[in-house]
Amino acid sequence: MNDSFEPQPALQPPFAGKIMLVGIGPGSVEHMTGRARAAIAEADVVIGYVTYIKLVADLIEGKEIIRKSMTEELDRAVSALEAARAGKKVALISSGDAGVYGMAGPTYEVLFQSGWTPDEAVQVEIIPGASALNSCAALVGAPLTHDFCAISLSDLLTPWPTIARRLDAVAMADFVVALYNPKSGRRTRQIVEAQRLFLRHRRADTPVAIVKSAYRRRENIVFTTLDRMADAEIGMLSTVLIGNSNTFVRNGLMVTPRGYANKYDMEEGGATRDGERAGRSLSTGLLGWLETLQAERAAGASVDILAARHRLPADYIRDTLAEPWNDEVATEGEGEA
Amino acid sequence: MNDSFEPQPALQPPFAGKIMLVGIGPGSVEHMTGRARAAIAEADVVIGYVTYIKLVADLIEGKEIIRKSMTEELDRAVSALEAARAGKKVALISSGDAGVYGMAGPTYEVLFQSGWTPDEAVQVEIIPGASALNSCAALVGAPLTHDFCAISLSDLLTPWPTIARRLDAVAMADFVVALYNPKSGRRTRQIVEAQRLFLRHRRADTPVAIVKSAYRRRENIVFTTLDRMADAEIGMLSTVLIGNSNTFVRNGLMVTPRGYANKYDMEEGGATRDGERAGRSLSTGLLGWLETLQAERAAGASVDILAARHRLPADYIRDTLAEPWNDEVATEGEGEA
Repeated sequence: MNDSFEPQPALQPPFAGKIMLVGIGPGSVEHMTGRARAAIAEADVVIGYVTYIKLVADLIEGKEIIRKSMTEELDRAVSALEAARAGKKVALISSGDAGVYGMAGPTYEVLFQSGWTPDEAVQVEIIPGASALNSCAALVGAPLTHDFCAISLSDLLTPWPTIARRLDAVAMADFVVALYNPKSGRRTRQIVEAQRLFLRHRRADTPVAIVKSAYRRRENIVFTTLDRMADAEIGMLSTVLIGNSNTFVRNGLMVTPRGYANKYDMEEGGATRDGERAGRSLSTGLLGWLETLQAERAAGASVDILAARHRLPADYIRDTLAEPWNDEVATEGEGEA
Repeated sequence: MNDSFEPQPALQPPFAGKIMLVGIGPGSVEHMTGRARAAIAEADVVIGYVTYIKLVADLIEGKEIIRKSMTEELDRAVSALEAARAGKKVALISSGDAGVYGMAGPTYEVLFQSGWTPDEAVQVEIIPGASALNSCAALVGAPLTHDFCAISLSDLLTPWPTIARRLDAVAMADFVVALYNPKSGRRTRQIVEAQRLFLRHRRADTPVAIVKSAYRRRENIVFTTLDRMADAEIGMLSTVLIGNSNTFVRNGLMVTPRGYANKYDMEEGGATRDGERAGRSLSTGLLGWLETLQAERAAGASVDILAARHRLPADYIRDTLAEPWNDEVATEGEGEA
């Protein structure tokens, strides 16, 4: 136990300090939340990467400002803790959301390392904001209407095989993907590798949007396709959005359908398709699929054939067929009518 | 071409209508953005699921309100378009972010179906907000500090094999995962299946947080583990956060490390580890990994052995080794010193 990390019992609320991890959203003041503005207003000290400090310049007059460079994340957290233990209120600013590749993680790591616990007088508050994927999506259309992933291509803290494995998995499983930190002056090959891994599973004409500086002065949006993605201008302020197999671009808008066409005939005024019911699971939903699986098995299909047909692991198919509750399925399904 | 879908040239700005897709964040007014509040304030008509309308009750006095039930998403979009074509400003309200499983997708689908184009007098604006995963993460600690996915377990519009394939892929590739729509009165087995698919790849004691009604009156947070996840109380207002293999819970906070420990010795005051440099890619980053791969190949390892060792597809390993630019790698890496 390190004595220098002991809480200071003399400082109790309202005299105790506080660390507020503020997500300021894309960067324009109108897209900050009320709580984010209030947190910066009540702070004695504001700490952040220089670019983010500039984005909130109108809110921080007269405050102590600690500007840090991009790579000094742990330093920022240490400075915040020191100021808070001295009784100050500290706003630690992240663009987007403080929890998404932001300062929330490094701050808790530093706090735990120092012996801090939530019982200590220094309180911590995380103030959520719209992250880059939300802001970029809002500008290009509606790409995130279905399941999506965020992957950082930065290998400054993550081994490349980990990143490559993730790219491969989500390309195969047909997620919409937001690539954070896609490219920098030094890191130029990661986006080429990402493209290569994606092209193993996805069509060359899969829609891609590259959004730079969303909602800021130099905002720039480029639509392209997966096979041309790596040739586009991409930098540190870019987020790359790769559509799934259903994503389309129409009239300059990138949209991922939610799946209404699976249930409703969109051409015919929205009539419900045969075998489907509004407000209920699809006929190919879990219970319907379990019935199909059992019927196919009963008709003689092997576990391996079923695994290949449904593109799922053989042991999952086998376990699913072996579950005792399969008998209830048909009954329960019918009971919902 | 359908004449009834023709734009109405008589209505031009400022008389033309507008559809504003407003993400209100978790639901408490202080976590709304300035632009979201302004959009609701300037709207003539406010449309939304009844629960969301209640959340902004103080902002909508005197406005035309159209309340819709949960399953009437397409109806909401149609109502919005009708009102906008009649020259009204319409705020279509989503909780969280309008783009994440929200109204942005269905609205564009309905607009395109009706023949709308961005050149039409009716304008569309999407106003980003913090989505459920941001809000829930802020309350439980810092679970989203590394790559993550959002998957909806609802099979009302998505076939189960698609959902299962995604669960399997991201469990294998070690993403942090946010499960949206994890369970409802009718859909109780999906969360059990999700657990089963995850347990094929992840440790039984993987941390899981279940967050209900984040930042609302009945907010409730439960920490559990993957092997107990399906036994916890989960409902329509819950989001389930499943950690990756590095995520830990300490002092009631769920944290996913960003990876500083790969580069810095966190116990030794943050000294840089041997072979690593601040501000540079890891020695196991892309360029370092490519060198390793070539060295291992030169030492006699087959493509299949390398694929198994690095847990990546054999054809990716083979293509990577065959790339002509492998020669540059060492040079470029050294040039960065």
